[in-house]
Amino acid sequence: MRKPRALMAGDQVRIVAPASPTTKESIEGGIAFLEGLGFKVALGESVFDRDGYLAGSDEDRAADLQQAFADPDVAAVVCARGGYGCARLLRHLDLDAMAASDKMFVGFSDITTLHLALNRRGLATYHAPMLLTFSVEREPWVYESFRRLLSGEDPIVDGAPRGKTLRQGVAEGPLTGGCLCLLTDSLATPDAVDCKGRIVLIEDVDENPHRVDAMLTHLENAGVLNEAAGIVVGEMTGTDERSDPKIGTWPWLRIVEDRLACWNVPIIVDYPIGHKKNMLSLPLGLRVRLNADAGTLTLLEDPCA
Amino acid sequence: MRKPRALMAGDQVRIVAPASPTTKESIEGGIAFLEGLGFKVALGESVFDRDGYLAGSDEDRAADLQQAFADPDVAAVVCARGGYGCARLLRHLDLDAMAASDKMFVGFSDITTLHLALNRRGLATYHAPMLLTFSVEREPWVYESFRRLLSGEDPIVDGAPRGKTLRQGVAEGPLTGGCLCLLTDSLATPDAVDCKGRIVLIEDVDENPHRVDAMLTHLENAGVLNEAAGIVVGEMTGTDERSDPKIGTWPWLRIVEDRLACWNVPIIVDYPIGHKKNMLSLPLGLRVRLNADAGTLTLLEDPCA
Repeated sequence: MRKPRALMAGDQVRIVAPASPTTKESIEGGIAFLEGLGFKVALGESVFDRDGYLAGSDEDRAADLQQAFADPDVAAVVCARGGYGCARLLRHLDLDAMAASDKMFVGFSDITTLHLALNRRGLATYHAPMLLTFSVEREPWVYESFRRLLSGEDPIVDGAPRGKTLRQGVAEGPLTGGCLCLLTDSLATPDAVDCKGRIVLIEDVDENPHRVDAMLTHLENAGVLNEAAGIVVGEMTGTDERSDPKIGTWPWLRIVEDRLACWNVPIIVDYPIGHKKNMLSLPLGLRVRLNADAGTLTLLEDPCA
Repeated sequence: MRKPRALMAGDQVRIVAPASPTTKESIEGGIAFLEGLGFKVALGESVFDRDGYLAGSDEDRAADLQQAFADPDVAAVVCARGGYGCARLLRHLDLDAMAASDKMFVGFSDITTLHLALNRRGLATYHAPMLLTFSVEREPWVYESFRRLLSGEDPIVDGAPRGKTLRQGVAEGPLTGGCLCLLTDSLATPDAVDCKGRIVLIEDVDENPHRVDAMLTHLENAGVLNEAAGIVVGEMTGTDERSDPKIGTWPWLRIVEDRLACWNVPIIVDYPIGHKKNMLSLPLGLRVRLNADAGTLTLLEDPCA
């Protein structure tokens, strides 16, 4: 797995919006934070475009992304927000060229689709806050974790909460995964999530309870999750609020426990990643140790080249 | 493809609840309708069980289903309702034995999962109302279509509305498909939907607009939908009401048009199937003709043996 180089003061960070639309106001805070770290922030041409739930046409979003990876002046490509739209771009992108650029790529949620595609092509990427994330005040360690990862330091900072043990044990492997619905949306495609021997992140937002069940069951029926070395669940944010009285419900934590009970590997839940109120920044594709007894992840290699 | 025999007065119809829970009151109307047609209605043991969004444990729901198919006194197995739960049963069922029974199997929505598994094993099944469907008054032709299909007559009755042309042309092939999220939930599993040379039904209920896009994009990225001979879209019921102002929206019809525009096969939309207010009963696995100019489907073989 190839790694991007660590960012240095003066490096250009290119902002792209490959999924849903954003506004200037909602990403101001994120830009100010990046500039405060000493980086030059530049925006992709169509970042503020808007067409329904997409930040402009597929062609324009793909062109911004491709151009960012191709530009020798760009050191890191950071997504403005997730939402939905990356899966529509796959056929428009030269993913091999993007991966070969060895640039730093940052995002989560819908961006999971691009992480899977770039990791599969040998480039480590970063499951970390996007600009929209910083439109809400987060705990100081969220900013520090993000800063450290971009700088090539260990992003698993003191102060971040541990996960809760669902099944004890210790496992090591490359980190993969991300937002659950994008993991299932990848199945049967050329860029399907590969869990074999890996530590798998799983989290999601605004899903109905029975859909969380359906997606975890899909990963099981597809024979995918049974290959994992370990599982790290974040939060199913907003799921308990989406109980449908027409069909009944369980709390998301019970659903996750029920659906993962069959896997005899270390598992933790409630780990601070993804759509949780406060989240760590983590490198995807690189080796980590999951200690499910302690509720911790530890990087086993430097996050940058 | 093997077909069930047509039902006759006095035949036993066994009601099962393989997915979400139901109540006595909500299926009374459906039972009365079936009894009015001259059938004996018997209930599976756990039909009124309830555990969260499931009609009882996986073991009990699977046992009811398996027993219904194994019982020589049962002529047809009709689902009480959909919701969610069939995908959890796959590992508990002897699907080969079920298919070999040549019994009539009736349902839609979450039941799509079982249709795919039984069709793949050579048994034609029926995409048709469930008991819960009849808890609401439907147009007279809905009852007549259902009665005709169970009796081995042509269920495409006069009075049912036609579909609207999305792409002109005429195509023939076996009928497959059903509820969109169950079609995508099948991908990469042993019972994945096979669209090759087939006329594919697509409909869903209560999905967010961007999820309809994501699922149609998934079928495309998985190289599945491009093999279809023709596409018959019902309705994305309740989708327009689920617009999320956080990410923007399109009407479901625009999403479907956008996502299917790339397929050069006959396509109709708004055809009366699935979660529409009024719906036809159709056999899955059997050959049909789609005339997209006229907005019609025509059965090319008898629906029963």
